[in-house]
Amino acid sequence: MLFSRFFAHTSREVPSDAKIASHRLMLRSGMISQTASGIYCWLPLAVRILDKISQIICEEQDRIGANRVYFTTVQPADLWIESGRYAAYGKEMLRIKDRKDGDFLYSPTNEEQATDVFRKYVKSYRGLPVLLYQIHWKFRDEIRPRFGVMRGREFLMKDGYSFDISFEDATRTYEKVFKSYLTIFRRVGMLPIPVQADSGAIGGNMSHEFQILANTGESTIYYDKKLLEASDDELMTTFAVTDEKYDPQSVATQEKDLMISKGVEVGHVFHFGTKYSKAMNTFVLNEKGDKIFPEMGSYGIGVSRLVAAIIEASHDERGIIWPEAVAPFDVTILNLHVNNAICCEIAEDVYRAISASVRYEVLYDDRNITVGEKLMDADLIGVPWQVIVGSQKAQRGVVELKNRKSGEVKEMSPTEVIGRFMG
Amino acid sequence: MLFSRFFAHTSREVPSDAKIASHRLMLRSGMISQTASGIYCWLPLAVRILDKISQIICEEQDRIGANRVYFTTVQPADLWIESGRYAAYGKEMLRIKDRKDGDFLYSPTNEEQATDVFRKYVKSYRGLPVLLYQIHWKFRDEIRPRFGVMRGREFLMKDGYSFDISFEDATRTYEKVFKSYLTIFRRVGMLPIPVQADSGAIGGNMSHEFQILANTGESTIYYDKKLLEASDDELMTTFAVTDEKYDPQSVATQEKDLMISKGVEVGHVFHFGTKYSKAMNTFVLNEKGDKIFPEMGSYGIGVSRLVAAIIEASHDERGIIWPEAVAPFDVTILNLHVNNAICCEIAEDVYRAISASVRYEVLYDDRNITVGEKLMDADLIGVPWQVIVGSQKAQRGVVELKNRKSGEVKEMSPTEVIGRFMG
Repeated sequence: MLFSRFFAHTSREVPSDAKIASHRLMLRSGMISQTASGIYCWLPLAVRILDKISQIICEEQDRIGANRVYFTTVQPADLWIESGRYAAYGKEMLRIKDRKDGDFLYSPTNEEQATDVFRKYVKSYRGLPVLLYQIHWKFRDEIRPRFGVMRGREFLMKDGYSFDISFEDATRTYEKVFKSYLTIFRRVGMLPIPVQADSGAIGGNMSHEFQILANTGESTIYYDKKLLEASDDELMTTFAVTDEKYDPQSVATQEKDLMISKGVEVGHVFHFGTKYSKAMNTFVLNEKGDKIFPEMGSYGIGVSRLVAAIIEASHDERGIIWPEAVAPFDVTILNLHVNNAICCEIAEDVYRAISASVRYEVLYDDRNITVGEKLMDADLIGVPWQVIVGSQKAQRGVVELKNRKSGEVKEMSPTEVIGRFMG
Repeated sequence: MLFSRFFAHTSREVPSDAKIASHRLMLRSGMISQTASGIYCWLPLAVRILDKISQIICEEQDRIGANRVYFTTVQPADLWIESGRYAAYGKEMLRIKDRKDGDFLYSPTNEEQATDVFRKYVKSYRGLPVLLYQIHWKFRDEIRPRFGVMRGREFLMKDGYSFDISFEDATRTYEKVFKSYLTIFRRVGMLPIPVQADSGAIGGNMSHEFQILANTGESTIYYDKKLLEASDDELMTTFAVTDEKYDPQSVATQEKDLMISKGVEVGHVFHFGTKYSKAMNTFVLNEKGDKIFPEMGSYGIGVSRLVAAIIEASHDERGIIWPEAVAPFDVTILNLHVNNAICCEIAEDVYRAISASVRYEVLYDDRNITVGEKLMDADLIGVPWQVIVGSQKAQRGVVELKNRKSGEVKEMSPTEVIGRFMG
């Protein structure tokens, strides 16, 4: 990709209303453009990141047998009246009248529609288990949207819904999704901390939030040091709570070697039993012909929020440091002197060579701007590897390979750089 | 993919309100589920097809330098008041009040938001040309939604917007997108007919609709026989119009060797000059410092509609016949006797072997249903290749390879089938 033809307009200005690093950096790198309070256009750099995250989510969800769908964003009020949530949801629900004065709403979540789709098709225990998910846009009419896409009104979310014949089966599904979520967050380069979101993990409802550690996070997490070395199964029960649930007086707390960290909530898994299947009279027949109300769970990842959370967890004073798995490009080539023939030749050779591999996406900064601007933009945008082509070094037949994360810079020949990626 | 774990529930029932083939077949194959008039959930089979089409669109749009974004679905009325379309759009626009009584709407198209994003970032002629596109959900509150997703209210669309410094540059962009659209429609397996949607192709506004030939289409197209052998450039000017514009008395018409076909409109390209850039006071400075209002165009493909259009163009009395490029799976393996050990062994061997290739996605029908149901479902769903494993032939060490389109069936050994795909 030629930067001169890429719609990413960076800025040195620090927007005054942007209180947190991710909001500032997403605006400054030209990732998002606000259209109204809490409503943002996602520009090409950001779209590439959403795609990478979505791809990882789909791979991991498909692996556990989840089936991808698109629920509708506009939904009839009737479904929500049936579940009892239409009145209960309050002003966060964006309510809509269509041209025939029918009551609709913009989906904030999809327990109702998932249950409705399920009941149209599945009538027998043989059709279970079912695990449906989507990655789609939602709307919650927050009273005070803030922190950019971290707490926006229109947002991209992965949401999933499970249907099982028994509590035991539902527990197994819950565990499968729990592990899948750990894998997803690790694959995007983050350390996920699952915190107990409900009192009793066994017997009653199960619920965990997934927090990503970030010094600037809005949650405070208290967790057993063992958690950092726990296996995926142990993670479900290892002590970890947010400040809302933290009780320094409790014996459970005092016995532990506690760590305290800041985090950002990026996911939530929830078993809620037959709440919706009963309310919406959704049942299957078992082998004996008895009506069984499926045990349900729902599972969410805030995809657009995760983009911001990754930035909170991975940035420095110069800009974003993308983990390789979700970076918008793998390599950026900085041609510092686009009017210098040697620089152009070297930069274009390296660009062509590395771009030839399907493994690497390359951003070639061919813009006619100052050296300082070009270097600052590269650090701001945060592509993992920079190949810096300047006229003096180019004359000596060398370029610099810089790692954005470590800051390490190595001089090498263009051939060595190409070999580093294509070898 | 095991069919027993795949959320695709077929039906023999022909829905009485489904008037056209694509609507009936999408419902019968379990691709879509209606939630309200003109509003459909897209189920796993259909999501796979949307993905394939979207992938082809992105590849071809990226190839011509288009930049992918996500505009917002909820947009402030202010933008549309500025362009003059807020009042003009009428009841097809789904209007929304947020919790603070602000006026919003669900995007039916994005000329306004594209212009707004453009003007925030591009101030100089050096930033041109710009071509932004997205694949995203839109809403048009049709008074009479009908024909399933062919004329739904919530729909998936690719829409793109171009900004050029001059009419000449805009013409070049228009031609690039025009050719890209031809490639896209051909790659999804269709024959596109571009029809002149406006009187003068030269000088004034340019506009073409893309029609896909289908006997059941709602448009009638009159076109010069030469069109079938025209090059991509010639296609822009070769005579082709829909019945609305057809004038049997005109000399231009009488001179031609005319063909008449039925078609479905699936795309539209439109040059509209400075209409929105002027209305929204959006300009760049040229080399001399003069204000220039960019020449704009917009370009749409109805992605969800295209799914239905492909079915209209490619089905028979037994079901859908997917073109290979957009088929939900490449191969389906029908184990006709899942309680027969030899059938299971052969079917699973073939399944494992072909699935091992990244080139092929395989649906293994392992469901415990009757032979007739299984064969009918395979023809209904329309995967291009069927590997049919029945007990009698299996005992002789052979299976059948059936081509869904031609209906041709060949007996061969499992090894030969595997070789056919993996060779």
